[in-house]
Amino acid sequence: MYCIVMAGGSGTRFWPKSREEKAKQFLNIYGKNSLIASTLARFHAFIKWKNIYVVGKQSQKELLEKHCSKIPKENILYEPVGKNTAPCIGLAALAIQKKDPEAIVVVSPADHLIQKQSRFQRVIETGVHLADKREGLVTIGICPDRPSTGYGYIQVDKKVESAGQADAYQIKTFAEKPNLATAKRFIECGDFYWNSGIFIFKVSVFLKQVRKLIPDLYKQLMEIKRHMQKPEYENKLKRVYQKIKNISIDYGIMEKAANVYMVRGDFTWNDLGSWEQVYKLGIGDKDGNVVQGKAVLLDTKNSYISSSKGLIAVLGLEDVVVVQDGSATLVCKRDKAEEVKNIVEKLKKNNLKKYL
Amino acid sequence: MYCIVMAGGSGTRFWPKSREEKAKQFLNIYGKNSLIASTLARFHAFIKWKNIYVVGKQSQKELLEKHCSKIPKENILYEPVGKNTAPCIGLAALAIQKKDPEAIVVVSPADHLIQKQSRFQRVIETGVHLADKREGLVTIGICPDRPSTGYGYIQVDKKVESAGQADAYQIKTFAEKPNLATAKRFIECGDFYWNSGIFIFKVSVFLKQVRKLIPDLYKQLMEIKRHMQKPEYENKLKRVYQKIKNISIDYGIMEKAANVYMVRGDFTWNDLGSWEQVYKLGIGDKDGNVVQGKAVLLDTKNSYISSSKGLIAVLGLEDVVVVQDGSATLVCKRDKAEEVKNIVEKLKKNNLKKYL
Repeated sequence: MYCIVMAGGSGTRFWPKSREEKAKQFLNIYGKNSLIASTLARFHAFIKWKNIYVVGKQSQKELLEKHCSKIPKENILYEPVGKNTAPCIGLAALAIQKKDPEAIVVVSPADHLIQKQSRFQRVIETGVHLADKREGLVTIGICPDRPSTGYGYIQVDKKVESAGQADAYQIKTFAEKPNLATAKRFIECGDFYWNSGIFIFKVSVFLKQVRKLIPDLYKQLMEIKRHMQKPEYENKLKRVYQKIKNISIDYGIMEKAANVYMVRGDFTWNDLGSWEQVYKLGIGDKDGNVVQGKAVLLDTKNSYISSSKGLIAVLGLEDVVVVQDGSATLVCKRDKAEEVKNIVEKLKKNNLKKYL
Repeated sequence: MYCIVMAGGSGTRFWPKSREEKAKQFLNIYGKNSLIASTLARFHAFIKWKNIYVVGKQSQKELLEKHCSKIPKENILYEPVGKNTAPCIGLAALAIQKKDPEAIVVVSPADHLIQKQSRFQRVIETGVHLADKREGLVTIGICPDRPSTGYGYIQVDKKVESAGQADAYQIKTFAEKPNLATAKRFIECGDFYWNSGIFIFKVSVFLKQVRKLIPDLYKQLMEIKRHMQKPEYENKLKRVYQKIKNISIDYGIMEKAANVYMVRGDFTWNDLGSWEQVYKLGIGDKDGNVVQGKAVLLDTKNSYISSSKGLIAVLGLEDVVVVQDGSATLVCKRDKAEEVKNIVEKLKKNNLKKYL
């Protein structure tokens, strides 16, 4: 059993804690360890370090090596530039296939928060069973607790019998991020799940599907494969990657392939999409304030305060997020937390690159 | 003609820009220079540097010497501990009387903002005339533009004829900081002015009144006088000051003396009592935001943003004050700006002294 952790995200939603050179997966937004370190530990509970692969950005090499110090260096693969999930998984699949043509892999984002490890393992085991016995492409669906417009949805079909300890279904359809009305309809319908971005399949099955459904990408991957472990590899990789089209595994493979399954993920899952979500995860004081670092609050309610070094004092405010990190401070209304990426856009436009 | 600039304030209202060791008068809250430097320059337009005296705190000696570099060092007098305005003026009066027993002094706080210099000079000249010809105790009153509860008020009586180019009045009564209803009544009444804290008198007249109205203080001042310019001076000063009672010139002298006058100050005056006042003085952008330093604002209105070093980003807020200075950041609702001193109190209580 193998694992591919996708760690190429840039994480503008957690500015100023996440910066261009320190993406969300390297932050310890929740708990003591960085999100990527927690993700690796979660898989190491049932997968050997030498079978865990990480795919990241060349520009974050130093951070990746630091946060993934337990896995062999050759298991950290670098993309010259991010081209979405299908090429990323393809690159890691090549490396794994070389070692073990019959490998089964679990693919996972590096920056999600997952709790309840035993449930998680049970879900993964069910997926592995489906991927192995039925040669299926398996995705993990999360039971939605609100009509979120921030996720893609999966509509399930018939339940798959005796697939393992977790519930598994055939998939009826995939739906892109919906608007609010559609999201509400999905929730009412009852057979829609959030797409977690966690996938399980045999590398051989995945690559077969790439050949069939994204033939250009398959050819490009094969070209890369021919140069692996050769001196010209990095140059070749760069040149090929420039031509690779940006395409997600959802759109490129899962939505079009036949033999797809969803396992119901009944563990606690949070993709930590904004400071608002981090606030909601925190344990508030009697006024509903969640505080990290040094702060003094007066007449302040339901707010998230995080200070990396200095002191933050808040007086007479409600429902705000205040995050200080290094040379930058963010002050924002909680219900605008999803728009923090617009601040990052404005920094770019205003030539304030040193704060990115 | 002489001048006494009172510079002993601690200025908790401008935290985190003002700290225990850097009071409001040393800040350049408005304009390029510190408030004390602007005050000195304002008087130097018609008073020689050698006749300008500053009274401050021993603990702020270094800052005082830096900001008052143009006046002789011996003109900076240090109180071991602040005991309100009457002892402060008394101490400076001793030093001035020694040089010139017939001196007329203008007494002024160090940390007010005054604009329209020629009007200011005309007002002072009228006061000097009254202090000289009528041996009066003169105060400057400010025409109120709102029913503020933050100032003491002066009710005037008959106008004094041909006292100078500015209007001058006999004083009917002094009123302490009123509640809102009383303040509104004062404004409607029309003959109430704000007490600016600027006074004019002969040192001899002032000391005569101290002898008559605060005899304990007079004795203590005379004891200090006997040891001036002697080796034991500092120790003696410390010991005497411990016993001196906290008393203002308003309460101790002005309210009780007979020969008191008020000159109408028609210059632009602002005691800069809070960040709210600084916001109102600023020139806002199209969204009503006043910004000092580096900031990025999105969907933000009518706010005051000041950054000393880093960058402040504000998203989706209205009517807030965000001030970053050194290791501390204040975020507060504009209409709570007067309560910033409560933050300072809480820092003391919570043993966060390094941020004071």
